[in-house]
Amino acid sequence: MILVVKSGGERAVPEWQACFAAVAPQLQVRWWDEPSLDPASVDYALVWDPEPGRLARLPKLRAIFGSGAGVDGIVADPHLPRGVPLVRCVPPEATQRMGEFVCWAVLSLNKDARRMALAQARAEWDWFEPPFAASAQTVGIMGLGAMGLRSAQMLLGLGIPVVGWSRTRKDVPGVETFAGVADLPAFLARSGVLVCLLPATPETTGLIAAPLLAQLPRGAGLVQVGRGVQQVLPDIIDALDSGQLSGAVLDVFDPEPLPPGSPAWSHPRITVTPHVGSLPSRLERARYVADCIARIERGEAPPNVYDPERGY
Amino acid sequence: MILVVKSGGERAVPEWQACFAAVAPQLQVRWWDEPSLDPASVDYALVWDPEPGRLARLPKLRAIFGSGAGVDGIVADPHLPRGVPLVRCVPPEATQRMGEFVCWAVLSLNKDARRMALAQARAEWDWFEPPFAASAQTVGIMGLGAMGLRSAQMLLGLGIPVVGWSRTRKDVPGVETFAGVADLPAFLARSGVLVCLLPATPETTGLIAAPLLAQLPRGAGLVQVGRGVQQVLPDIIDALDSGQLSGAVLDVFDPEPLPPGSPAWSHPRITVTPHVGSLPSRLERARYVADCIARIERGEAPPNVYDPERGY
Repeated sequence: MILVVKSGGERAVPEWQACFAAVAPQLQVRWWDEPSLDPASVDYALVWDPEPGRLARLPKLRAIFGSGAGVDGIVADPHLPRGVPLVRCVPPEATQRMGEFVCWAVLSLNKDARRMALAQARAEWDWFEPPFAASAQTVGIMGLGAMGLRSAQMLLGLGIPVVGWSRTRKDVPGVETFAGVADLPAFLARSGVLVCLLPATPETTGLIAAPLLAQLPRGAGLVQVGRGVQQVLPDIIDALDSGQLSGAVLDVFDPEPLPPGSPAWSHPRITVTPHVGSLPSRLERARYVADCIARIERGEAPPNVYDPERGY
Repeated sequence: MILVVKSGGERAVPEWQACFAAVAPQLQVRWWDEPSLDPASVDYALVWDPEPGRLARLPKLRAIFGSGAGVDGIVADPHLPRGVPLVRCVPPEATQRMGEFVCWAVLSLNKDARRMALAQARAEWDWFEPPFAASAQTVGIMGLGAMGLRSAQMLLGLGIPVVGWSRTRKDVPGVETFAGVADLPAFLARSGVLVCLLPATPETTGLIAAPLLAQLPRGAGLVQVGRGVQQVLPDIIDALDSGQLSGAVLDVFDPEPLPPGSPAWSHPRITVTPHVGSLPSRLERARYVADCIARIERGEAPPNVYDPERGY
């Protein structure tokens, strides 16, 4: 069985091969651009941002695996083969890592880690008193999928109150939940820190912009771990400069990598992280993909299949 | 009733006055160096690092309040009036803030926030893959007082395994505990991240040094939120440079402020924070001090009185 890989570039191929050798030795792992590879021999593909049209040239493909939880870089391909299941990569470790990142970001905003990092760069003992404990401010999570749920649970474990919003109503223990466009203003008014964990869909594109930010309590924090296309960076910067936002941790951008000239890099109230929020280790992802392949080979349906209707 | 204040300097006095006005309007709050202040009129003192001999010149002092949890800067005064209770400031918010700081620091080490901050300073998209989730590494907490217990509870809430060490054995739900000098090697061998929450005593002075660091698993992390005199900074730097430690978050130093020439500021694997770990807001501390004063005035004993035998 042949699995073709395009994730992390050619230099990542040996590591993917080592990971799959440990969890699924029967799989042959090949590089996406390998000239000697016969397209008709490929059974599965594990990809991040594949060039449009390339997947359609693999005639015997049985499933496509995204190498991350978001597959918008794959469904953007107008020639994406229909009928081949596209599986989002959300192993348990990915939800744990995302929860850890969200907690780290929420605490970083409360402690003003960005101010401390800038002071360290100047070798300056800039003592200051954060105005309140993180537990004194409610965190609002937009998007209550596996990652949102785990993040909520972990924040509650820190003693931090949580409210949640999703497209359709979800019941989450210990969390007041809101649903749909009608509930959005009430949810935003409660969110002292807004955490965006939404998938990239037409509805969420450009959502994190001035009209939404204006509905947050004054001085709110923003943690953006969704997708870069959801945010309007100039609006976020305006909100920071006016004091409507007190700080932002941005892990996703459009485009990525964030260009060297972006004002986000040097803004004193923006923490830039290079899209590391949810990434599980290659070994965990290999284990997840191998498990999905085993299910497909047994004739079972894999989990987390992309639904074009829903958009994720 | 007169409370004299030396904490945060003269510029902090108006804020202290406003805080006490909100919680104990009968208290007159005066600045430590106010020339017109009659020493015989002072009932209570709230201090951080008072000049030696100064407290002894207040003849009617009924209690001394440290403005933080550690009172080593007060007991260092050879003329500290005996018989006047010295109260450590540990309001509930202080333990919550310390737990938040510890969780932030442990997550910062796991996510390598220092590397991300240095990359942001260079406007460089330095993508990398943390080798494992924070939940894959056990955190060892030295010091199981109120702050250690809350930190343990919060780390467990993040899914992170915790072991604990204290001078005398403590039972902590969900935490394997170790006690005394004899157990130290077994405890250290289990600590993928070591969190020091010990008070400053003769026994803990110079403890965080090469012999202790060598007993940690290779590549361990260090979070130092105890007291600066406990650490030997050159040994920590050697351990970082040799790979014995993978990273350190240091919140306390000896002396403080950390001098501009210290190598800690620019070390790529040290995060310097300006002793902000446990600080509750002034309002919370004023509430705690006012509550203690009310108890004393009713003839009751205040909590958290310094014990010279124990050393904290």
